[in-house]
Amino acid sequence: MVDTQAAATSTDSAVVANPGGPQARPSMVWDAWGSPAGHKPLSEQIRGLLTQVFGVSGEPVARRDEGDVPLPASALTAEHRAGLAALVGAERVSTDHRDRLLRSGGKSTPDLLRRRSEGPQDAPDAVVFPGDHAQVAALLEYCSAAGIAVVPFGGGTSVVGGLDPARGGFDTVIALDLNRLDALTEVDPISGTATLGAGLSGPQAEELLARQGLSIGHFPQSFEYATIGGFAATRSSGQASAGYGRFDDMIQRLTIATPAGTLELGRAPASAAGPDLRELFSGSEGTLGIITAVTLRVHPVPEATGYQAWSFPDFATGATALRTVIQAGAAPTVMRLSDEAETGLNLARAGDIGGAAVGGCLAVTTFEGTAAHVAARSAEATALLTAAGGTALGETPAREWEHGRFAAPYLRDSLLDVGVLCETLETATTWANLANLKAKVTAALTDSLTAQGTPALVMCHISHTYPTGASLYFTIVGKQAEDPIAQWAIAKRAAGDAIVAAGGTITHHHAVGADHRPWMTDEIGDLGVRVLRAVKQAVDPAGILNPGKLIP
Amino acid sequence: MVDTQAAATSTDSAVVANPGGPQARPSMVWDAWGSPAGHKPLSEQIRGLLTQVFGVSGEPVARRDEGDVPLPASALTAEHRAGLAALVGAERVSTDHRDRLLRSGGKSTPDLLRRRSEGPQDAPDAVVFPGDHAQVAALLEYCSAAGIAVVPFGGGTSVVGGLDPARGGFDTVIALDLNRLDALTEVDPISGTATLGAGLSGPQAEELLARQGLSIGHFPQSFEYATIGGFAATRSSGQASAGYGRFDDMIQRLTIATPAGTLELGRAPASAAGPDLRELFSGSEGTLGIITAVTLRVHPVPEATGYQAWSFPDFATGATALRTVIQAGAAPTVMRLSDEAETGLNLARAGDIGGAAVGGCLAVTTFEGTAAHVAARSAEATALLTAAGGTALGETPAREWEHGRFAAPYLRDSLLDVGVLCETLETATTWANLANLKAKVTAALTDSLTAQGTPALVMCHISHTYPTGASLYFTIVGKQAEDPIAQWAIAKRAAGDAIVAAGGTITHHHAVGADHRPWMTDEIGDLGVRVLRAVKQAVDPAGILNPGKLIP
Repeated sequence: MVDTQAAATSTDSAVVANPGGPQARPSMVWDAWGSPAGHKPLSEQIRGLLTQVFGVSGEPVARRDEGDVPLPASALTAEHRAGLAALVGAERVSTDHRDRLLRSGGKSTPDLLRRRSEGPQDAPDAVVFPGDHAQVAALLEYCSAAGIAVVPFGGGTSVVGGLDPARGGFDTVIALDLNRLDALTEVDPISGTATLGAGLSGPQAEELLARQGLSIGHFPQSFEYATIGGFAATRSSGQASAGYGRFDDMIQRLTIATPAGTLELGRAPASAAGPDLRELFSGSEGTLGIITAVTLRVHPVPEATGYQAWSFPDFATGATALRTVIQAGAAPTVMRLSDEAETGLNLARAGDIGGAAVGGCLAVTTFEGTAAHVAARSAEATALLTAAGGTALGETPAREWEHGRFAAPYLRDSLLDVGVLCETLETATTWANLANLKAKVTAALTDSLTAQGTPALVMCHISHTYPTGASLYFTIVGKQAEDPIAQWAIAKRAAGDAIVAAGGTITHHHAVGADHRPWMTDEIGDLGVRVLRAVKQAVDPAGILNPGKLIP
Repeated sequence: MVDTQAAATSTDSAVVANPGGPQARPSMVWDAWGSPAGHKPLSEQIRGLLTQVFGVSGEPVARRDEGDVPLPASALTAEHRAGLAALVGAERVSTDHRDRLLRSGGKSTPDLLRRRSEGPQDAPDAVVFPGDHAQVAALLEYCSAAGIAVVPFGGGTSVVGGLDPARGGFDTVIALDLNRLDALTEVDPISGTATLGAGLSGPQAEELLARQGLSIGHFPQSFEYATIGGFAATRSSGQASAGYGRFDDMIQRLTIATPAGTLELGRAPASAAGPDLRELFSGSEGTLGIITAVTLRVHPVPEATGYQAWSFPDFATGATALRTVIQAGAAPTVMRLSDEAETGLNLARAGDIGGAAVGGCLAVTTFEGTAAHVAARSAEATALLTAAGGTALGETPAREWEHGRFAAPYLRDSLLDVGVLCETLETATTWANLANLKAKVTAALTDSLTAQGTPALVMCHISHTYPTGASLYFTIVGKQAEDPIAQWAIAKRAAGDAIVAAGGTITHHHAVGADHRPWMTDEIGDLGVRVLRAVKQAVDPAGILNPGKLIP
């Protein structure tokens, strides 16, 4: 079913057409995370555990070939196709089955369960591949006038329904694929800034910068596929956020196309010239505009990295220890802590998941910079962590964590294949409220899944620390019920309600999308929602941008 | 002319009525900076210099008694007075001459020159003193319905016309004085956060927190008078910003009253729940709402402070050295560098201004934390600054700078008194563009003042550093022309145009107010301005909030 002409518009060929650009990125499988090369079959150890705990057989169920998946006929009219083609070229407007299927949504567990289920899948009516900012701007102007909904598409890694091809009352929805915006257009090594196209994936951006001896240092779990534009549009936060900051902290300048025109925001490292409008478009998730280029703070590739793992007798002790380090300004690059359940399953050690149970709570720290800088920071942190009750475990568990840190989503696929439910969710709160929030969310997940007859393991870690608080990242593993999408919806609702009731934010780094939208009013209040709607009215008066996401 | 009943509504008495609150703050003089106790008469040294360089006599001109200043009659109608009194009590609605005069604007040099000139002064028609958030919210609702313009008033320290009692087309304008909102309502020592009333001045906030062993660490030059609400509303940046961040970095939560309702923003230390709306109200300068309480990141009062001053052969060498330190993450608390002109006049050393000229460029660093933390950071910075061409000068000049760091505005008054023009302005840019921006702004100021027949000294320092760039703070001293307000307006216009042309931000920490508003479109573009207007329409549909400021 692959149309040769349309195939020429796909991401890979676009990258090849740009010889000075980055290496091509692998495509993700339509119904799973990542490329087939990353597939992680379940170890004997994990299979045994699944049989023992959940009574599942461990035998993968059959999955569909992408060509066999029925999609609704494209609603793109000939007139609109011609209109779009006039802006970007006919070969950049695709209604090809595979192009549409690969942009049919993100990679949440419900997304993947839906793709593994029988029946038709929703998909955008067409995929359009603009080549530069001017084309994105022209497309938005055209779609606004024509009444065509637009879903910006970067790496396709949303786990919150942020890429659902919702029409929002329009007849037609297109995916606006940004992957041709893959240039490193400006590097300022003195100031430590670089301007990157929105469509560059994490590895592509790091590859281009490494040629100049520079690095962003943004390594979320989605790193291998997610894009610069997506990081900005969702307020992404990487595993090295303690050292290099959240992605929003790194943003110096944003170039944004909207139906109402173009914005260039950010004239200096810091400013008192009114509200910081960059912060209005960071996290706007494609609902207020399409970010086409981002100028980021970058740094030299670090000379040295110090690794140190720690064990704490319990989560509370470990959390207090991490707090002490971050509040003292000891400046780790990575600092994370698994709770007893996650440590017991070795979930932070990809090579030994489900292996012999380990007691206590595992923490990982890394420090980057010059050798002297690493030594000084590491010494300060070591003194603080030891005084706070930590036992140093040496480098190995920290290196193991780093080695396997992008593997978890592949493991999820293998679990879904054998009838196990596996999903994650996350929040953040103050240090003082952390234990309360963790207990309430754990109880909500445990109770709601147990009440459905499918008791589950609920594990948690701290992966992002701030002087005033930290994130909590939950992993939930249990047996799939007959309707696992409905099963998870109940648990997710319970967890979201618990987060709001316990004073957490509804998302620390996964963003809002469609899935967290029911709680946005709890997060920012009625008036906050009205403010967002007013901004949307100003930049997207027709309401074409990513309908059904973020703004209630 | 002081009305006894109205006097009971003044800031000082309100503070006295709150025995658990902070000590009363001194009032500022109506036509100068600060209280009379802070007056800094000119030294013989400075007088000599002024005579020699500018040919001014050094003899102060007479100033008017505040009771003698004609103000326009209050336009507040009896109906509106009753309406306001119903919300806050009759004794909290003042049309007293002194209350109005003290809230007639801010403390820019043109403000002070205007007050020193003959003729009537503009002033708000009344001053209203709400006691809590609910009263502020009720006042805004009332004023919105009644068509009364509202200028929020905290410390009165604006140097950009942010407090001008502009009517914006309404018949009446009131100053909404926030100084009764002076409570420390919540302290969370575990998370390191504190919730402070918007009306607390810098010293009052530090006093209340010091009782708990805590500190904010925000020390702008306006520290002695400016308020928590004002810091937030103007994106203030303190001298210790390298260590503790800008004020906007410290904000965890904002409570904001608007004519359309109340906003509570900030549920966690960090979040991906859409745009960060705190960043829309930080820097909103009273045009989008009135900030009534701020939850801030705070830290323990530091155990130790290390001081070190440095000399660099020239500004470029010094700037590179500072860049090296901040990019390495060596984490100074304060780090600043005076250029050759400022160093030559000893302007960073309050006790010796105008003394024997010093060559090169003076830099000051401080480090705070535990003794071990200070020692480690200081050692790293010392190595970097030495390698970059710095010569250590010991502690004394750094301590002298700290001792005199709030004195400059008092000195300005003494200069204005003797016919000398003295004003400051500031910007920021990337490290790579710093020398270019400094040269362009210096040339614009020098040329425009020389062309008016009043050549001036233009001095500059870096006071805020970031990994990607730094601020530039200019001090201009020259002889006043016959019409010094017009003289400065020409120079200011030239400097602002030069900043925009050279790629700087129109203000790094003084904010926009009325004075920088002509360049807001250059800063954020037409569409950015339309976004701000859309937000204003949502929260302030009648347009009563601080007319004529920020939004073009």
